[in-house]
Amino acid sequence: MRVGVLTGGGDCPGLNAAIRGIVRKGVEVHGFDFVGVRDGWRGALDGGIVPLDVPAVRGILPRGGTILGSSRTNPLASEDGVHRVRETLADFDVDALIAIGGEDTLGVAAALADEGIRVVGVPKTIDNDVAGTDSTFGFDTAVNIATEAIDRLHTTAESHTRTLVVEVMGRHAGWIALYSGIAGGANVILIPEQPFDVDQVCGWVENRFKIRYAPIVVVAEGAVPKEGQMVVKDSALDEFGHVRLSGVGEWLAREIADRTGKEARTTVLGHIQRGGTPSAFDRWLATRFGLRAVDAVKEREFGVMVALRGTDIVRVPLAEAAAGIRTVDPALYAEFGVFFG
Amino acid sequence: MRVGVLTGGGDCPGLNAAIRGIVRKGVEVHGFDFVGVRDGWRGALDGGIVPLDVPAVRGILPRGGTILGSSRTNPLASEDGVHRVRETLADFDVDALIAIGGEDTLGVAAALADEGIRVVGVPKTIDNDVAGTDSTFGFDTAVNIATEAIDRLHTTAESHTRTLVVEVMGRHAGWIALYSGIAGGANVILIPEQPFDVDQVCGWVENRFKIRYAPIVVVAEGAVPKEGQMVVKDSALDEFGHVRLSGVGEWLAREIADRTGKEARTTVLGHIQRGGTPSAFDRWLATRFGLRAVDAVKEREFGVMVALRGTDIVRVPLAEAAAGIRTVDPALYAEFGVFFG
Amino acid sequence: MRVGVLTGGGDCPGLNAAIRGIVRKGVEVHGFDFVGVRDGWRGALDGGIVPLDVPAVRGILPRGGTILGSSRTNPLASEDGVHRVRETLADFDVDALIAIGGEDTLGVAAALADEGIRVVGVPKTIDNDVAGTDSTFGFDTAVNIATEAIDRLHTTAESHTRTLVVEVMGRHAGWIALYSGIAGGANVILIPEQPFDVDQVCGWVENRFKIRYAPIVVVAEGAVPKEGQMVVKDSALDEFGHVRLSGVGEWLAREIADRTGKEARTTVLGHIQRGGTPSAFDRWLATRFGLRAVDAVKEREFGVMVALRGTDIVRVPLAEAAAGIRTVDPALYAEFGVFFG
Amino acid sequence: MRVGVLTGGGDCPGLNAAIRGIVRKGVEVHGFDFVGVRDGWRGALDGGIVPLDVPAVRGILPRGGTILGSSRTNPLASEDGVHRVRETLADFDVDALIAIGGEDTLGVAAALADEGIRVVGVPKTIDNDVAGTDSTFGFDTAVNIATEAIDRLHTTAESHTRTLVVEVMGRHAGWIALYSGIAGGANVILIPEQPFDVDQVCGWVENRFKIRYAPIVVVAEGAVPKEGQMVVKDSALDEFGHVRLSGVGEWLAREIADRTGKEARTTVLGHIQRGGTPSAFDRWLATRFGLRAVDAVKEREFGVMVALRGTDIVRVPLAEAAAGIRTVDPALYAEFGVFFG
Repeated sequence: MRVGVLTGGGDCPGLNAAIRGIVRKGVEVHGFDFVGVRDGWRGALDGGIVPLDVPAVRGILPRGGTILGSSRTNPLASEDGVHRVRETLADFDVDALIAIGGEDTLGVAAALADEGIRVVGVPKTIDNDVAGTDSTFGFDTAVNIATEAIDRLHTTAESHTRTLVVEVMGRHAGWIALYSGIAGGANVILIPEQPFDVDQVCGWVENRFKIRYAPIVVVAEGAVPKEGQMVVKDSALDEFGHVRLSGVGEWLAREIADRTGKEARTTVLGHIQRGGTPSAFDRWLATRFGLRAVDAVKEREFGVMVALRGTDIVRVPLAEAAAGIRTVDPALYAEFGVFFG
Repeated sequence: MRVGVLTGGGDCPGLNAAIRGIVRKGVEVHGFDFVGVRDGWRGALDGGIVPLDVPAVRGILPRGGTILGSSRTNPLASEDGVHRVRETLADFDVDALIAIGGEDTLGVAAALADEGIRVVGVPKTIDNDVAGTDSTFGFDTAVNIATEAIDRLHTTAESHTRTLVVEVMGRHAGWIALYSGIAGGANVILIPEQPFDVDQVCGWVENRFKIRYAPIVVVAEGAVPKEGQMVVKDSALDEFGHVRLSGVGEWLAREIADRTGKEARTTVLGHIQRGGTPSAFDRWLATRFGLRAVDAVKEREFGVMVALRGTDIVRVPLAEAAAGIRTVDPALYAEFGVFFG
Repeated sequence: MRVGVLTGGGDCPGLNAAIRGIVRKGVEVHGFDFVGVRDGWRGALDGGIVPLDVPAVRGILPRGGTILGSSRTNPLASEDGVHRVRETLADFDVDALIAIGGEDTLGVAAALADEGIRVVGVPKTIDNDVAGTDSTFGFDTAVNIATEAIDRLHTTAESHTRTLVVEVMGRHAGWIALYSGIAGGANVILIPEQPFDVDQVCGWVENRFKIRYAPIVVVAEGAVPKEGQMVVKDSALDEFGHVRLSGVGEWLAREIADRTGKEARTTVLGHIQRGGTPSAFDRWLATRFGLRAVDAVKEREFGVMVALRGTDIVRVPLAEAAAGIRTVDPALYAEFGVFFG
Repeated sequence: MRVGVLTGGGDCPGLNAAIRGIVRKGVEVHGFDFVGVRDGWRGALDGGIVPLDVPAVRGILPRGGTILGSSRTNPLASEDGVHRVRETLADFDVDALIAIGGEDTLGVAAALADEGIRVVGVPKTIDNDVAGTDSTFGFDTAVNIATEAIDRLHTTAESHTRTLVVEVMGRHAGWIALYSGIAGGANVILIPEQPFDVDQVCGWVENRFKIRYAPIVVVAEGAVPKEGQMVVKDSALDEFGHVRLSGVGEWLAREIADRTGKEARTTVLGHIQRGGTPSAFDRWLATRFGLRAVDAVKEREFGVMVALRGTDIVRVPLAEAAAGIRTVDPALYAEFGVFFG
């Protein structure tokens, strides 16, 4: 049996660990043959197929990124996409595909499975927002990096009586903000799931200054203020009257500085959250996912993805991951209210 | 309501995060009053009671160790232990107790609960072997430290064609060895749950050398060879014929060196596995455990401990934790056989 | 003898280590008495004097920031500044002052010394640009943080065929950019000392893509393109025709993307470069500086600062530090040209 | 010109960075051709010569260990050693050799240079004890690792009222012990250069307990007690009356426990001190050494090694490094006495 492996979407620590697990077990236990599909679905469209064997996966376990490359190409965006994927698989005698990715990549996988292509999914994303699994690899590493950054900012905040706003990743889900904010001892945590009240945020900041500690505000990139609160000042508009600030973090720091009369600074962590060596847990989870995904191929169970349920790895229909993202439950967010302000 | 908090057993990253969560929510939400019990159950026996309020828990979130001190004192070991604990609680008007600890500490808590003392448990241990919960805080930090050490040893192993044996913590359960061994890419992982065959271990080591990579062997301190195999050789004796090795790691390294004819070295990680700042996950889990434990007191649900079940925090009878430790399932261990040798 | 200690300017890992060294040796060896001056020169102006003794410095060695607070207040900016500093010292019976800071703080110290105030300087700055010393504490930590971030970005760059621009601190001197760029394996390093040629930078970036590796560009916040090259496009202007991009990093990424036709992203490391626990070397250097500064007070040698010369700690006139900053020698920069492109 | 590169002695973070610097500049600037000599001097004896070009050094900068392998083989130990080295060089048309190593490797290089072989040396060692240079790469990484371990042990020490003894590398020189001990806030630091008094050590430990802080003792593996003090007590004997302790750290912990009546534990850091990714400074220094070493070959200046002098890289005769090791000056050690006890 010849199996293709591809990694799609944003890169994420643990991808290489998953690839290694798949190839090691596939070759050594199940007797499979492997090829790599370059740059996510793009390779499946364009015939970007490369060799993939046990020597190719030696030493990659602790390395971030993906040896297969990635892209955000969506084969469903072009009319003949599915047809071309099918052709590529036929041309290279690929019997089944293991697709490692987030909601988008797995959504494509689900659609291809519906078309009869033999595919197994592996969920990954630093955002932790794939539905159907308790967690995804990449998330733990991202949270550790963000927490370490918040730890560092505490000392600057305390030495200078200023507010520090940290913008972390999370366009649609606030998992990184919530975990790193709680772990880092932030005084305010703002997530996309819950529009925030700027007055309340400033109140929390003022409270914090009263006990002589400087406030740290963690905000997910996708968080937004309540309707009507993002009144844009002249100085914050570009020549066409559009907001010219680059992100919610910068906007919020300006608001806080204006309202409290005390200096506020922003740090945007950006891509350092998704790079570098994976945490031990992410290597562990990615390895387990890889091993179980290749088992699913062996058992000819397609149209599924592997998922974490408690401490077990289970299989769920790909459709679950494609149905929408997993967001932070308001009740969970509310649990931490005691730390705000 | 006045609540006492104690930390017992070996220290563990996240203890302070749990204490902070308990005190912040207890004071600010439930209106409780707190005292600290010094040095685990010893303080409960001897009246070692100290003040504990919100200012006392400021800044402790990222700090390892425990501000309350710890010990392995067991009040059940002396005849009047339970009586003395009861007296201390009465003397200081303590209405309920939150006990943070591993199997031993929680076992004592279970016994005291049976005697009518109002106690809530919080599981902790770097060994991850408390029954009744999916995981305990401290474990993730320990695994990260061990994995980072294994990462470092790989480069030495590769540069010198030698076997490196790493002894990690785990007297009765192999969780740290298994997780860090898989995350670190070890070639052999030995756990207490499964007596190992020295011949097989040496075979794996030899295989590894054949592909020009140096072998890393991770061994839990409680792992043992199959019956009869720990025959002490002459070379493991001192000049008077006595065994002179300190742990299984050192014994195994010598065996491997003797049998393969290639140099082998041991590293014993020891206490660095349980110190220092907790990982983000351990701070998160400890904080959640703390918040929920104090809620249990508020709801007057005693004789229970908080526990992780999937992504939820639940309450389980203390008796569950006291019934025995959680060990590595042979089936889980077997999953990783593909990476051995 | 009563000695005041103050920390001025931006905060910097190692300040607490220096304070601890001063107080431990001053009290235990020289029999001095200490007070802390709050928030840099502001406390010297306004009577912000706090107790400072051996218990106050326990446990602060590994902590970033400064227990004394800091500010950029300059007493020379107001007419009666020197007079007020003198009064504060007299009011609190302070015989001598140890001022820890960068060029600005030490410049004030030099001026006060000229006015007869007994002051000893200790150089610190993450920028490494204080004249008269081989190095300052804080720099090594900042370089380690920036290098770790660059390490992380490599994996993202490689997985996605994009250029990553990293903006690091350094308004007037390129030390952090140069050290972290070399240590992190950057393909382009741009420093304030040498205006860069955008065409050349894009050429280097293109070269890098040719060998299938993604380029990393490290740019100091104070780096500027050659005259005339920062032609601002319409889309980069605000409503008054002014450049609206926030820093050179963002501007450069846009230029590179426009010219190469390939995606480019910016990461601005910002304040995480100056926070958190100091590296071992910074703790060592700060401790040595502290010990030697208090020796200078004992020997009544004022108007000097301690400095690193090779592996020795020496004393140099404060005027040396006040005379201007230490920048990167063009010859040193040129040494690394082989790694560009 | 064809240049051979070899790495000898214990492995050390930064070796790959040095190799990369040599090859990149040698090929791209000087037009040299390179070969690698496998496993230190062993390859020079046995014809272990491998290709070494620019693609071979891509991506190795952040990796510990050495891509060329290492050994402690000494060609001067066999009568025809020099002859065989000369033959290997002739067989493979190698015109000059760059030897990267510590005292032993550089001593061999000095002897070969005396025999007319064209050799340039690059000093490396985690022990920092090569004479003729202010510092060697590898040392900063080792100190950071040891300091981080000491940081972790503080929390355990404080939580349990016990003494923790940390044994670090340093057979003949106490640099790692001194730097990491000072950076980690140890209460006692023991180095090979100065035999220690066990009574004094125990006195310091007792002092520390009095102020309720637990003592950390850092001891270099080569440190020894004053003459006559290592009397082996009954408790240090096994049941047959024989010594059963493995190193000075373990011996000392037992002595302290016996004399103070309080628990004492040992941690032996071992090989994790020499592995893993190099610190930023070590990558910087190794890169600079590499660039300058290949310049020396270009300028046909042989029989020298590159060395750090202040912030400059200079050349010194290889004989300087071969003359003996650089140890800790008693005056420097005495400077830190204030922190002991």
